[in-house]
Amino acid sequence: MNFSHLLFTAAIILSSALNGQNSLPAIIIHGGAGTIERGMLDAETERAVRGDLQAALDAGYALMRDGGSALEAVEIAVTLLEDSPFFNAGRGAVMTAEGKHELDASVMDGSTKDAGAVAGVTTIKNPVKAAVAVMHHSPHVMLSGPGAEAFAREKGLEEVSNAYFTVPRIKKRFTELNKAEGHLPPEEKEFSKFGTVGAVAIDASGNIAAATSTGGMMNKRYGRIGDSPLIGAGTYAHDATCGVSATGHGEYFIRLGVAKDISDQMEYAGKTLAQSAEHTIHKKLHDLGGTGGIIALDSEGNHVAVFNTAGMYRGFRNEGESWTGIYRNEDPR
Amino acid sequence: MNFSHLLFTAAIILSSALNGQNSLPAIIIHGGAGTIERGMLDAETERAVRGDLQAALDAGYALMRDGGSALEAVEIAVTLLEDSPFFNAGRGAVMTAEGKHELDASVMDGSTKDAGAVAGVTTIKNPVKAAVAVMHHSPHVMLSGPGAEAFAREKGLEEVSNAYFTVPRIKKRFTELNKAEGHLPPEEKEFSKFGTVGAVAIDASGNIAAATSTGGMMNKRYGRIGDSPLIGAGTYAHDATCGVSATGHGEYFIRLGVAKDISDQMEYAGKTLAQSAEHTIHKKLHDLGGTGGIIALDSEGNHVAVFNTAGMYRGFRNEGESWTGIYRNEDPR
Repeated sequence: MNFSHLLFTAAIILSSALNGQNSLPAIIIHGGAGTIERGMLDAETERAVRGDLQAALDAGYALMRDGGSALEAVEIAVTLLEDSPFFNAGRGAVMTAEGKHELDASVMDGSTKDAGAVAGVTTIKNPVKAAVAVMHHSPHVMLSGPGAEAFAREKGLEEVSNAYFTVPRIKKRFTELNKAEGHLPPEEKEFSKFGTVGAVAIDASGNIAAATSTGGMMNKRYGRIGDSPLIGAGTYAHDATCGVSATGHGEYFIRLGVAKDISDQMEYAGKTLAQSAEHTIHKKLHDLGGTGGIIALDSEGNHVAVFNTAGMYRGFRNEGESWTGIYRNEDPR
Repeated sequence: MNFSHLLFTAAIILSSALNGQNSLPAIIIHGGAGTIERGMLDAETERAVRGDLQAALDAGYALMRDGGSALEAVEIAVTLLEDSPFFNAGRGAVMTAEGKHELDASVMDGSTKDAGAVAGVTTIKNPVKAAVAVMHHSPHVMLSGPGAEAFAREKGLEEVSNAYFTVPRIKKRFTELNKAEGHLPPEEKEFSKFGTVGAVAIDASGNIAAATSTGGMMNKRYGRIGDSPLIGAGTYAHDATCGVSATGHGEYFIRLGVAKDISDQMEYAGKTLAQSAEHTIHKKLHDLGGTGGIIALDSEGNHVAVFNTAGMYRGFRNEGESWTGIYRNEDPR
């Protein structure tokens, strides 16, 4: 951890201490981390992206303010992010080497430690809803491929054609990538890798839930499964510690068990959320050579968004605070 | 944790302390945990089962004694357990609801934290070798379904027909189960659930590796993925702490992140391997209502086999000690 990270951590701790008890409910979301530099998005796109982040925050927050659970809040927030064409999840997902979309999602309820996940679904409009259905209506945690699809269909989830997920921006990038592999600017290839959406919420009762959804990695082959549908890697929630949703180069997140690693430092070392998240991202992920980030909320409503990339689409809302962020160093605290 | 567990833990700690430094290399294996009571196996079967456990131990141990790595040792040991018809992995795997075999495996190298896994392969003779190939020869950690199979084929791994995995004992149980669902003795249904094989080894250099392989759950549907192919749940290895391979009701092991949970207690709470494993299995898994167990080795060569079922097929070998076990309370220490 370098000096600026230490300062950043200190600032977060100080800010939390001055705030005292944070107000509940609260929700934090992300739309992926990567090489998102100022100037890469035109003003109109940036406005639209921030609008979609805000809509997801508002929907999740309003639902909890009206008595809904953290689990329902992360489901609606991630559903809206899946429906947005700007993020690599649901509509707007990247394409496999075969030019198709294979989607993964997971969800965890920190009060019961129930969890659900789907990997490699291709026609379920909202994979996060399939993950919730697995959690509620099957004895299993993780279903994959055509089996997961059949299960979601039996549960009456909305189906679409695989082409529904294709948006022109991704189709164009896919075509260019496969016409000129190796000639694209590195940041564009990097960007393709890190798309994921996620949400972590804590409701008025103090229950924490987390959900993550993704289209995976552009040009992926071989039925590759990343960290997003893996409980403990891309998603974790435990009421006594925190909820976490991750985004980044998934293989590194699996090897480190990033989401659970943060929770376990709080549980076993008595660290704060900020200390734990900083250690996992800026020390462990950094040392292994991985890139990406996480959003998280602890049992007192403290929140962090920690990433080692140039930017991360993100936002936070509770009673007194509401913001969205894209680039580094624009969070209000 | 009840009093007998405390006593058991105390006995292990005392035994380790008296032993001082354990001799390296060392290997511990399992062939699944479940309702394995004395008298369920006839004498001839028990002899054959113990023989196959011993053969796996001996192969892994000999390889390391001759300078091989922990990674090579767990690969050969798990390969032999997959080839044995007695365990739910490779040949002898249980059947899906469609009467087929879908196999999962994972491996992790604690020195590099590299990992590999396959889920839902149907014609690769040794799924653990496919997991090792993913780790060494792909940029990914986890491949699934036909894609994982295509990858393994490209790497030249041995293929068999799906029927190769069928043994008469499993075929008979599958037929009975589907003829008389609900009328089978509970222990037989339970037994079907907990089959998994695994190995954890530490080589002369102190490198730790772990591997797990399974046929999953009898009558499974919907492309269900259990804990065996999931890094952090069924398998974990970290040279600074320990290596773990789990077996049990996989959904609980995923929700708790069992393998990483044990490693994290050592890393973040400074607990011993025995204390960590006892807490995860006898407190956390117990409280959640899950059943199963783990084998593990720490960086000093201490080993544990902890389970909350009637039995677990298991065995250990280092220079001075070599044993196999099936029932509770038959380990030499």
